[in-house]
Parts: sequence; C-alpha cells; structure tokens
Amino acid sequence: MTTFTTMAPDARRVLVLGGTGFLGTHLVDALVRAGSHVRVFARSVPRRDGEASPDEADVSQRLCNVEVVTGDLGSGEGLAAALDSVDIVYHLISSTLPSTSNADPIADVQSNLVGTLRLLQLMRDAKINRIVYVSSGGTVYGNPAMLPVPETHSLKPLCSYGVVKVAVENYLNMFAELYGITANVLRVSNPYGTHQHHIGVQGVIPTFFRKVADGVPIEIWGDGSVVRDYIHVSDVVSALLIAGTRLQSGVFNIGSGTGHSVNEVLDIVQQTIGRAASVRYLPQRNFDVERIFLDIARARAELRWQPELSLDTGCGLYWQEICTRLSGGGAADLDNGRTQ
Amino acid sequence: MTTFTTMAPDARRVLVLGGTGFLGTHLVDALVRAGSHVRVFARSVPRRDGEASPDEADVSQRLCNVEVVTGDLGSGEGLAAALDSVDIVYHLISSTLPSTSNADPIADVQSNLVGTLRLLQLMRDAKINRIVYVSSGGTVYGNPAMLPVPETHSLKPLCSYGVVKVAVENYLNMFAELYGITANVLRVSNPYGTHQHHIGVQGVIPTFFRKVADGVPIEIWGDGSVVRDYIHVSDVVSALLIAGTRLQSGVFNIGSGTGHSVNEVLDIVQQTIGRAASVRYLPQRNFDVERIFLDIARARAELRWQPELSLDTGCGLYWQEICTRLSGGGAADLDNGRTQ
Repeated sequence: MTTFTTMAPDARRVLVLGGTGFLGTHLVDALVRAGSHVRVFARSVPRRDGEASPDEADVSQRLCNVEVVTGDLGSGEGLAAALDSVDIVYHLISSTLPSTSNADPIADVQSNLVGTLRLLQLMRDAKINRIVYVSSGGTVYGNPAMLPVPETHSLKPLCSYGVVKVAVENYLNMFAELYGITANVLRVSNPYGTHQHHIGVQGVIPTFFRKVADGVPIEIWGDGSVVRDYIHVSDVVSALLIAGTRLQSGVFNIGSGTGHSVNEVLDIVQQTIGRAASVRYLPQRNFDVERIFLDIARARAELRWQPELSLDTGCGLYWQEICTRLSGGGAADLDNGRTQ
Repeated sequence: MTTFTTMAPDARRVLVLGGTGFLGTHLVDALVRAGSHVRVFARSVPRRDGEASPDEADVSQRLCNVEVVTGDLGSGEGLAAALDSVDIVYHLISSTLPSTSNADPIADVQSNLVGTLRLLQLMRDAKINRIVYVSSGGTVYGNPAMLPVPETHSLKPLCSYGVVKVAVENYLNMFAELYGITANVLRVSNPYGTHQHHIGVQGVIPTFFRKVADGVPIEIWGDGSVVRDYIHVSDVVSALLIAGTRLQSGVFNIGSGTGHSVNEVLDIVQQTIGRAASVRYLPQRNFDVERIFLDIARARAELRWQPELSLDTGCGLYWQEICTRLSGGGAADLDNGRTQ
C-alpha cells in the first residue's frame, strides 16, 4: 500500500470521500493512473477474505494501491486523520438516495449536511483549499421549466436528497467567497456503469441488464415515460479529473445533454443482450421528476469537456465488461445486484 | 388567559412560534385584535414580577390575553403540545442572526433547520396544513445581480443564516408538493419598530435612535454606503395577516421596494430627533451584501398588499411611540437597547 509518507514529493495528494462506492471506485482508478497519490475515506475496507463477494474482491483489488482510512462523514469519526497532508478533496459521499431520503429528512440533514459542514470547517482550519463535490443534476432543479435545463435554472428540489445537495452547494459557495476555498460542484445526471449497486431510478441500467439477462420481470414506476439523462461513468470521471485541476470555483452540469425515457432504456438493454423483457408497470411515485436532461454547454466551454459515449455505446461497453468478468469467473455486478 | 379550550368555536386557532420576539409581539397583538385565538410558543414567558424590565413588562402585558407554551424549537421540547388543536402556524423563530450565524453553521443547522423539519413532520402527522414562514429578503439572494431583486432571482446566500432559510424554504415547498401543506413564505427585508432588540444591521434604526438620543458615538461597518430595504413592522404584520388567509402556497418579497443607505438612515434619525450624531466608521464585514432592495410587485398583485409607511414616516412613528412610552414612565426600548 502506498501512503502519503512514502510517496514522491511532487505528486498530488488526493483524498476521495466515498472512494469505495460506484463513482469513487472508478475515480480512484483514474487518479492512480494519472499519477496522483490517493487516499480513500470510507465506512469500511472492502473484504478480501474468502467470504468476499466477487464485487467486493474486485473493489478490494482496485484499492490495493491506495491508502484507506475508515470513518464516518456523518459523525466526523476519522475525518481529521483522513485530511492530514491532503492537497485536494473529492467529496462523493451520500448516505441517502433520492428515492428514500424523504422517509427521514432529519437523518439526511444530520448525516450529509452537518457532516459536510464539519468537513469544510476542518479543511478551512487545515488550509486545504480545494474541493470537488458531486451534486445531483437530477434532483436540484425539481421539475424543470425548460429543457435541457441550464445551471442558471431555479433550484426547487422535490426530495430531501436534493434539498440537502442545494444546501451543501450554498455552503460551498459561501466557504469559497469567505474563506478562499476553491469549490467545484458537478451536478451529475444519472451515471451508470460497473460497480453500481443501487436499485431504483439511479441504478436502472444495471438493474435492467440483470433482470433481462436472468429472465426476471422488470418493475417500472409509472408508465415508463419518465425521461432521464444517462451518462456513462467514464464520462463522469473525465469531468471529475478536469474539475480537480481548476483554480477557480464553478458549478457545472455533467450529463449526456440528451434525455431517454425508461422505456427507451429498456429497448436498448433488450437489443444489447438480444433478449426480450417482461415488464410490470407500478403506480407513479410523486417525488419523481417527470422529464429532465441537462444543458451541458457550460461544461463544454469552461471545462473543455464533453461526453464521449452515447447511451447505445455506453450500454454496449457496460454489457461487454460484465460478460468479460462473467467469463473470467467473477459474476461480480450481477451477483451483487441479485442480493439487494 | 384565553385558552383554546375556552374559546369561541368558530374562531381560528393560531400558533405563533416566536410570539414573544420583535415581529411576534406585534403579530400577536394584531391577531388578537382580528379575533383569532392565539397560542404563543417561546423559550420563556416574559417576567411579570418586580424585577421585569419595562420592555419585559410591556411584552408580558401584551401576552396576558393569549396562551403561552414554553419550549424549544431546536430540541423539539414542548412543540407537540403547542401544536395541539391548531389551525395555522406562524413560524417566526430563528436562533441565529445573519451577522453571527457563520461563527457556528452546524449549530445554525441543528437548531433552525432540524427544528423546522421536526415541526413540519409533526404538522403533517397532526394534519395541520397551513404555515406562514418568515424568511429573509436580505440574505437569501446574496449580492443581487439586479435591483430591485425579484423572487425569481437565483438564491446565493453568503451567510449560514441565509443558507438555512433557503433550505427551510425548499423543505416547505417539498412538503407543500408532497403532503398538501399550504406554505406561504414571506421574504421580509429589514423590519424596524418597537420591541426590536438586536444590535447590528437588522436593528440599525432602534440602535441609531438610542445612540443619537443619548449622545453616544455611532459605529458603522464600512463607509455607510451599504443599502438596505427598511420596512416598518406594521407593514410586515399586515402582510403576515394576509398570508395567513391564503389557500394556496406562495413565496413573496415583503419590503418597502426602495433602498436606503446606512448614512441616509442616520440622516433621517438625526432629523427626526433634531440632534446631530458622532460617527465612527469600522472595516467592512465581508459577509455583508452591498446593496439590496426588493421587488414587491408579486406581493402587490397576489396578496393585494402594499407598504403604507415611508422610511421618514415610519421613523417618525417609531420615535413618537418611544417618546410616549418614555413620558409614560417606561423607558422600555431605550433601556433595553442600552443593556445589550
């Protein structure tokens, strides 16, 4: 394991909060490849013993070149140690999901908002002045009045997850203005890719692939007309890397810039696998935004970034990665999805 | 004391959170005059004994016709009892000030945001579906990109007080959308009037009156060019009463619609009293917004409300009330201001 104390003196020291999660695992890979020294802050170290699931084993393997500090953002446990000697912080942690955050908004605030405020105060006191924060392109705007929705659109979130993201964004802006912290906020739409665990709108693509492959009926909330902006995790990671090099603060939509209905996604999944799905439609959930996709002109212009993979291509790549792993003996993501 | 159990069956039962504070005292007076049955929720009952200050005695006198429930919004203590059999809630509590909230934003969130979330959950569970919330016209917009600033302006608060107000507004909107609560948000600018205790930008008018009257030097942060939108408390109360009758949700700027610099306010105070002030200018505070005054077109159109008192007239009225009380033997507001 590489630690900050043994590293080359000119390398960037990067802390990734949530580095064992979906986006985090991919980001850590990319940062290590780019020559950064990476420390991961997470609730637990993925198991490496004989009981580890294929997915845990894979994440564990990816993390063997980085330092892992365990702790909890909500309580602040371990956070000060994780921040020691860090140049830049990537904050990818959320303890809630859009679909479940309304069940206990107080816990959402306690864990994610108070936890992030504690992080910002520790960063200010330790003079760590760069942070990249993953916000939520799908929830902060609420039901958008225009499509694609630009960053300047009013923020009217309809779930606690989104309200907390907006509050964190506002505190980041305040800390940037008052204390000279460089804060870059990426309002990421709906990322998909390997290591994605969540079932629900956020994880609809892996879920569909698993169920269609298994011949299991698919359940869709509403009539499948809900439109989202799906983006492959590799495109999100390229935006995260660029954001980490910026010397000024900013807020950027990170999405594909186009919308696809849930039914369209299912069509692509069926075509990719070459198998038909059976579908059951459930009642609409009233905290779901109807149609949203992001205007990414600002990120194109100021980050000189653009998504490289269409939804077709990205789904093909995803399925190829899963099949490669399956044929290699590890049914990682599929096994993992099945147990949740 | 009138309680809900002894009241006329057709009267509205109104709970005022923060009913012993500056705006609250005036609102309670107006609600009682309008025939509502009023319950006040506050940290403590103003003293009535021989040790009570003239200001405390005055507030105590005003509250003798209403029921007072003591408790704490931050901890939730006493809140459920206060909500019993209520038709509508006025939420006027803030445990922080714009000028001091940045010293401990976590405490700000814990007390005001978590406390309000607990209130909303209790209201939802008890099927109390109407709330009027006093937000902050002076802080939620940050430094406005246009003047006067309309409700549709982006929300970029530069102090924790404002970040929390925005988060509360977003939760109110969410509870309105999801749970059928009618929430009216009044973004009040800088109210002034009797019973105003705070020293600082919010309480600049009473502070100036006291110091000019006493011949004490006045301290001004910056060069006195900072522009605010001052509104007499009676105009705020009239908007609060109208908002309490609405059957749909809304967000409204409540201000005079015009801006005055701190130096202009001081001129008016000197002219009103007929005495010159001595002034000391202090360094600018970097969390102060430079110039702000509110676009009140929406409130004029949808609430059919407008402010009745100009700053000149309002300051004259304020000074008249203070002098009347002074000549009546109680140096209420002036004595109170002097001890803070």
